[in-house]
Amino acid sequence: MSTDRILVTYLTQAKDLQKKAEGIAVGMTVGSWTDLPLAKQEQLRAYLGEVAHVAPLETTPSGETRGLITISYPTRCFTQDIPSLLTGVFGKLSMDGKIKLIDIQLPPSFLQGFHGPKFGIKGIREITGVHDRPLLMSIFKSCTGLSLDELEVQFRAQAEGGLDFIKDDEIFFADDKAPFIQRIRRFKIIADEVAQQTGKPVLYAANLTGPSSQLIERAKQAIDAGASCLLFNALAFGFDLLQRLAEDPDIQVPIMAHPALAGAYYPSPDYGIAAPLLLGSLLRLAGADLVLFPSPYGNVALDKLEANQLANHLVGEYGSLQPAFPVPSAGIHPGLVPQLYADFGLDQVVNAGGGIHGHPQGAAAGGRAFRVAIDASVKGISLTQAANDSEELRLALEKWGGLA
Amino acid sequence: MSTDRILVTYLTQAKDLQKKAEGIAVGMTVGSWTDLPLAKQEQLRAYLGEVAHVAPLETTPSGETRGLITISYPTRCFTQDIPSLLTGVFGKLSMDGKIKLIDIQLPPSFLQGFHGPKFGIKGIREITGVHDRPLLMSIFKSCTGLSLDELEVQFRAQAEGGLDFIKDDEIFFADDKAPFIQRIRRFKIIADEVAQQTGKPVLYAANLTGPSSQLIERAKQAIDAGASCLLFNALAFGFDLLQRLAEDPDIQVPIMAHPALAGAYYPSPDYGIAAPLLLGSLLRLAGADLVLFPSPYGNVALDKLEANQLANHLVGEYGSLQPAFPVPSAGIHPGLVPQLYADFGLDQVVNAGGGIHGHPQGAAAGGRAFRVAIDASVKGISLTQAANDSEELRLALEKWGGLA
Repeated sequence: MSTDRILVTYLTQAKDLQKKAEGIAVGMTVGSWTDLPLAKQEQLRAYLGEVAHVAPLETTPSGETRGLITISYPTRCFTQDIPSLLTGVFGKLSMDGKIKLIDIQLPPSFLQGFHGPKFGIKGIREITGVHDRPLLMSIFKSCTGLSLDELEVQFRAQAEGGLDFIKDDEIFFADDKAPFIQRIRRFKIIADEVAQQTGKPVLYAANLTGPSSQLIERAKQAIDAGASCLLFNALAFGFDLLQRLAEDPDIQVPIMAHPALAGAYYPSPDYGIAAPLLLGSLLRLAGADLVLFPSPYGNVALDKLEANQLANHLVGEYGSLQPAFPVPSAGIHPGLVPQLYADFGLDQVVNAGGGIHGHPQGAAAGGRAFRVAIDASVKGISLTQAANDSEELRLALEKWGGLA
Repeated sequence: MSTDRILVTYLTQAKDLQKKAEGIAVGMTVGSWTDLPLAKQEQLRAYLGEVAHVAPLETTPSGETRGLITISYPTRCFTQDIPSLLTGVFGKLSMDGKIKLIDIQLPPSFLQGFHGPKFGIKGIREITGVHDRPLLMSIFKSCTGLSLDELEVQFRAQAEGGLDFIKDDEIFFADDKAPFIQRIRRFKIIADEVAQQTGKPVLYAANLTGPSSQLIERAKQAIDAGASCLLFNALAFGFDLLQRLAEDPDIQVPIMAHPALAGAYYPSPDYGIAAPLLLGSLLRLAGADLVLFPSPYGNVALDKLEANQLANHLVGEYGSLQPAFPVPSAGIHPGLVPQLYADFGLDQVVNAGGGIHGHPQGAAAGGRAFRVAIDASVKGISLTQAANDSEELRLALEKWGGLA
């Protein structure tokens, strides 16, 4: 790839795909070309988008050609932030008929302007002290309307299951009964107690909310109060706010990005932004250390190919950016762990809500069942065999399936 | 409407629409219900979503019922900001199969937490001194790669056409050849000169860009340098940043929201967020004084009903929020002005790019042709008749159509 070009791929359709691509290349950069005087062309050539590739895929019933087009944009058309990138390559274009943004490839010279994840997989493995297995996370069964005392009970039960992370519900904004800073303080006490017993830390991902102009300050207050991780609704707030949080040198805890609202962008075949780009490349670029995304299991799930691409965008080579932890979420129970391990490997976070809280013996047993399932999967032992030595896993498999 | 409930309408489909609605009402609030102990139900009832309405529309080929469902959410589940609202009513739900967010209705008690537009239609009419006609705006033909001297030439030509607003191109982020503060200073000199000649001000909407953590500061610097309006890519940056800009008491210029990226949300019939909500209610709620949106004309256009709903959401009654100016954009030329006037009335901004710059006699003549067309439309005079006294309008109508 040229050192100063950004390659952007779209899925679109037109009578003449090549002509449409040429229109985009000019229209999204200098605006017009063939009617410019030669001297002006000379001056503006360095800012001109160019068609890099056109790949027809099929003919639509209306006789149009549907296919992938790739436009090469000069890096000098952008500032090194995601609002500039998205506005520049898809802003008005998103409103121009059937077109979906599929991929953005940045050259190293441009990537250098982004810090990416501050901790990433390596840093989080150091903090958690877990190097040889997927990590395990639990979601509060519910947060809305519960008092701090009630949430403490939930927190302790989850922590005692041997988890690595416990996260707030992402809808937890109105937290007057269990205010942000107070619950960070109180959960830290429990986390420290449990760590004393188990010898390993459990991180609490507190949902960072509030006016966007105060988010950095709120994050710092959270850290002063003992926060070990922050959950952030990156799409509802905006990629750039995530980037500024991640770049702030005083924010020395991992940031976990929640995909809330992502379904407003990715599921349509004709419009929007593809999930691997939206939740993979862009969230990593903005600095997420962990990224939740819909697992490819269950009734309503991300397409498996897309989920794998998304995870690859988080862990694969991406300039000098640290890899981020994939967290395939929703519908996860212990019986799915071998499948998760086969699909996403060692460097993932197994994340469950109902699959932990719904365990017949409670959340702590639910966590332990997962830990046994994870250890078995890493060792290549079947869950049925592992369940021989773990009543907790056996009960989970009986409830949710997974016994061979 | 109950004083403490938010009504949210979705378009979705299911085997049993009522059951799906009930699942959403519970799942998006307290998480579970029927399996809760009675005492817990008592405690959480005030936080529980409820099904307000189910309206089946059609049966899909797969035998599902497609229709509108309305859920009533307690206001106490939310904080008074758009990330909380969108995460709470559509966050994880957006990823749950075919579902589109259509409308959000806020009760007055909750609306009070939002300031909305600081100037609105009334304030902008006071600033511009124009009370009896639609306003007129011109977009720079192109900004990318041009020097400040070249942009000055464009600015002057546009200003001399009798415009009320001139706006930056929304992709103008990398502005090293014509930096933000410098061009505000230089364009202000020209705007003042032209105002001396014409007796009326022309406002310049400078594209506010930069790290989100510095936007408020950058806006204040712009105002110190003489900025009269700010353009903001509200979707690329996030609704909440717009709200914080609009609420800041030191930012005493109108804010114009650009719809860049909106097409990633609204065009699919099955997914995303409907345009009237996204660009109408939500941008007004966040405090946009003017909102650009795709006009219902031209090849690729917003559906006319949606465009009208969108405009109604901007100008209609909405608690004590000021009305915001609708700016139907794209494909606008003088011949369309009677149609624009019929569709959007007096309180709109007529916004053109090519329809001004492409005038056979140049941009100033292009602006004047629009002014004549606007005045004629308000007076109920046909453009053909008005063109008898205006060569500029006649040339425009000959080029783009509109002569009877």
